[in-house]
Amino acid sequence: MEAPRPPLLPFVTVAREPLLDARVFRVERLRRRSGRTGREHEYFHIAAGSWVNVVALTKAGELVLVRQERHGVEATTLEIPGGMVDEGEDPAQAALRELSEETGYVGRVAEPLGWVHPNPALQANRCYTFLVRDVEAGPAHPDEEEDIEVSTVPLAHARELVRRGEITHALVVAALYLLDA
Amino acid sequence: MEAPRPPLLPFVTVAREPLLDARVFRVERLRRRSGRTGREHEYFHIAAGSWVNVVALTKAGELVLVRQERHGVEATTLEIPGGMVDEGEDPAQAALRELSEETGYVGRVAEPLGWVHPNPALQANRCYTFLVRDVEAGPAHPDEEEDIEVSTVPLAHARELVRRGEITHALVVAALYLLDA
Repeated sequence: MEAPRPPLLPFVTVAREPLLDARVFRVERLRRRSGRTGREHEYFHIAAGSWVNVVALTKAGELVLVRQERHGVEATTLEIPGGMVDEGEDPAQAALRELSEETGYVGRVAEPLGWVHPNPALQANRCYTFLVRDVEAGPAHPDEEEDIEVSTVPLAHARELVRRGEITHALVVAALYLLDA
Repeated sequence: MEAPRPPLLPFVTVAREPLLDARVFRVERLRRRSGRTGREHEYFHIAAGSWVNVVALTKAGELVLVRQERHGVEATTLEIPGGMVDEGEDPAQAALRELSEETGYVGRVAEPLGWVHPNPALQANRCYTFLVRDVEAGPAHPDEEEDIEVSTVPLAHARELVRRGEITHALVVAALYLLDA
């Protein structure tokens, strides 16, 4: 049996030093003091803005998917649409914008399904998930260097795509969980 | 209606430059050539080892949770146990090791539930999820600076914790999806 542990005492951040600006994220070094031990330690921190992803359903109940090159894995991945929220932009607007830019599908209302921390160990930012129903096809207008293949599958098929390892993006899997929940 | 788009052509990575070593991750700059346009662009890349997380169930069907300070969000978070796979370590062994170190709960068999890419846009690494059944309580042995509060909840309650925003870690939400799938 374990001895009872005292409640967690908060850490305090006592210093923050910028190390690297990588455009879509910045790396900082934090110095933080433990509330329990009083000792200070250094931690690396990745600062990034909010992200958004979109469960977009056609009138026929099909889920909109995108396949595109991802420079982290250096390969293409199958995902739901999404991207970065612009400075000052409402996440719901960002969801409708990213959906339209990446896929051409247009929706009217973005219903919030919740949000997650992509990686609370290193990052503070959030990824917001929205449901957009009854989307209608239109012309996509990706960035010049974005090469995106759009497809739809019956929503019920999404779980199978995760199980088969065709959808591997944690934030997409989390979005599907939020949809079910 | 959209004109048919040509199939995606692979990108090729033509250069890779280390920028920053942050112990638990490294930042690199990649130069990659588009297969479609032939043009080269630079992308930032976060290199990290494999991660693992664990759905650990007691004989009574309770899910083991940990609350600990996370220096990304600069606050405590409620999560399932997990961590980094050591160099050369089998992910299943890492799952049992992290479970025991962080919580004291001991399990015998780690059943793979699948894996996800934590962030394919920036990172290539994988997070492997394991199910460990019939875990038994024992003494925890966290790192000296790790201050971890262990609790259990009925597995059926996990979805409510996500819905209420008490569990916010995308990789934990993804693990719960993989469990359901």
